[in-house]
Amino acid sequence: MCNKEPLEKTADIAGFACPIPISDYPNVLLAHGGGGRLTHQLIERMFGSAFSNPILDQRHDGAMLSLPNNQVAFTTDSYVIRPLFFPGGDIGKLAVCGTVNDLAMCGAKPLYLSAGFVIEEGLPMETLWKVVRSMRDQANAAGVRIVTGDTKVVDRGKGDGIYINTAGIGIRESGLTIAPSEVRDGDVILLSGDIGRHGIAIMAVREGLEFETVIESDCAPLHGIVESLLEAHIPVHCLRDLTRGGLASALIEISEGCGLHLHIEEESIPVREDVQGACEILGFDPLYVANEGRFICILPEEYTAQALRILQSNSLAEGAAVIGRVIKDEKGMVTMRSRIGSNRIVDMLSGEQLPRIC
Amino acid sequence: MCNKEPLEKTADIAGFACPIPISDYPNVLLAHGGGGRLTHQLIERMFGSAFSNPILDQRHDGAMLSLPNNQVAFTTDSYVIRPLFFPGGDIGKLAVCGTVNDLAMCGAKPLYLSAGFVIEEGLPMETLWKVVRSMRDQANAAGVRIVTGDTKVVDRGKGDGIYINTAGIGIRESGLTIAPSEVRDGDVILLSGDIGRHGIAIMAVREGLEFETVIESDCAPLHGIVESLLEAHIPVHCLRDLTRGGLASALIEISEGCGLHLHIEEESIPVREDVQGACEILGFDPLYVANEGRFICILPEEYTAQALRILQSNSLAEGAAVIGRVIKDEKGMVTMRSRIGSNRIVDMLSGEQLPRIC
Repeated sequence: MCNKEPLEKTADIAGFACPIPISDYPNVLLAHGGGGRLTHQLIERMFGSAFSNPILDQRHDGAMLSLPNNQVAFTTDSYVIRPLFFPGGDIGKLAVCGTVNDLAMCGAKPLYLSAGFVIEEGLPMETLWKVVRSMRDQANAAGVRIVTGDTKVVDRGKGDGIYINTAGIGIRESGLTIAPSEVRDGDVILLSGDIGRHGIAIMAVREGLEFETVIESDCAPLHGIVESLLEAHIPVHCLRDLTRGGLASALIEISEGCGLHLHIEEESIPVREDVQGACEILGFDPLYVANEGRFICILPEEYTAQALRILQSNSLAEGAAVIGRVIKDEKGMVTMRSRIGSNRIVDMLSGEQLPRIC
Repeated sequence: MCNKEPLEKTADIAGFACPIPISDYPNVLLAHGGGGRLTHQLIERMFGSAFSNPILDQRHDGAMLSLPNNQVAFTTDSYVIRPLFFPGGDIGKLAVCGTVNDLAMCGAKPLYLSAGFVIEEGLPMETLWKVVRSMRDQANAAGVRIVTGDTKVVDRGKGDGIYINTAGIGIRESGLTIAPSEVRDGDVILLSGDIGRHGIAIMAVREGLEFETVIESDCAPLHGIVESLLEAHIPVHCLRDLTRGGLASALIEISEGCGLHLHIEEESIPVREDVQGACEILGFDPLYVANEGRFICILPEEYTAQALRILQSNSLAEGAAVIGRVIKDEKGMVTMRSRIGSNRIVDMLSGEQLPRIC
């Protein structure tokens, strides 16, 4: 089931053919990044046609935006995931969702993205086109516009197919400050669903592992769920998506940011059986495995039931659960009560668990 | 004089030592990008200390900005230049100046940058620190803040030391629309100084060429000069910096954007003698060679003298000159009258002149 790049050959690209003639340019050349005719052709025909919108169409050095207000969230992420295509997603989907999610975690409504491509000479033009199509589809689905971009080509052996950077701009409408510094004693910690699927989906492809059913990445845009919470006037204190470093690292970072003690219950943390099994085979702790569609929400206890109802009514968070709370203590740390009842400190991983997972 | 990386060994790093102990981590490891303790240490101690400001110091998924108004320019560029250090600059300086300049070319005041690092495993920690210091110094000099960032590490042989993406946010204060679409018949084309130095500085290092004096890149931030023009109420129609593809490509893109005929005089275009000589040796046309501190300004004829005075009074544009004008014609194109008096069409380069020049 899982060979090296299982989806690359089979993905449906019918109905919207690659706008660069594959017979002329089957692969990306260095000249596609040289600033001359081929760069121009690539930008106009591929990026320009896929991402077209009135702002991008102005073809200026930068995009001119007239924002609905001046309260802005700004974020960036580079995506270097290997392989480029995996069950449940690809680097293009990830590059849109990841940055949309970073904005959502600030309580901002995502509006605009930039896209910076670093392409390795020799990348099949059709692969690039599939990635670009995926970015376009995700951007459309998330209601964000790709308004400015940049394309560089590096020599063969100086990249790995394609790296993508997206930066994002969103606006804050709620007036709430959503940040680690807002977390308070007694707050409740909600988790939006089962953890570890993204990391295990990637590792399964890389290691050629087979399971009864394919484990798909949870990669998804989360801004809609966050908007639902804010529209219901839930006074959310902190949000954090559980990407690189997983649930454990997110909790530790928040605990460092607020100086408080976060305590979680292992029993309450949903992990799918196949993911748990794969973690055991691979020697991973699901607490540290990356997700791309899961987040934690820390909020005052009295809003717990209402927030849980909102989360569980959304298909992207139907497995949401209370996993712990912020407890009164003089030390900023994260602890977990294990299934057998013992308490332990949850610490940062010092080594490398999963390179190039996002 | 020019060996492979002449400046890397000699650059002064006294007075602000690398905050990651070189004895512990002489090189960047994959684990520095894994999301665990080493990532945390790198971000906190190196990026956090070098770029520190109240917004970045919040350590959130995104930066929260309260902009002075809601008229925003947004741009991005990835920097993949080889070598990382060159006469007159380095990839860090370029990553700040390049994006600051893209904002300036929109007539925007640059305010905030993001920084996305894709580091190859094994990069000397001290090299990273020199690049980061250079970014910090340039950002301080340009009055912009690096407010959000991201760090990825890719396996050895899948990168080339370091690639940097910066996205930038600026605000528009003038109310002017500055874009190719604003160019009009009869407008005058100003060039801010001699062309070709950046590209030739890079090629001289790569090819080991020696000249009587070192040719230094013209890499510089241009927003100050643009601000002077706008503060003097010069109704600028279009600005464009002459990066990848050089003067010729910039003119062609503008001509395509406005559908008008731009005509220039070769005799009026300043090219230093040593740059001209190097171009002849290397087989380059200076018209297509990249610059990182030069731009063209297209404006109504009656403002020519005033604009020239403003440019020439700034040390970064003291060689500014009128190089041509927009002429009434039904075709959008660029033509040039050569030194010997013949006219020719200036066309896009179809091949690759200078890979990885920015």
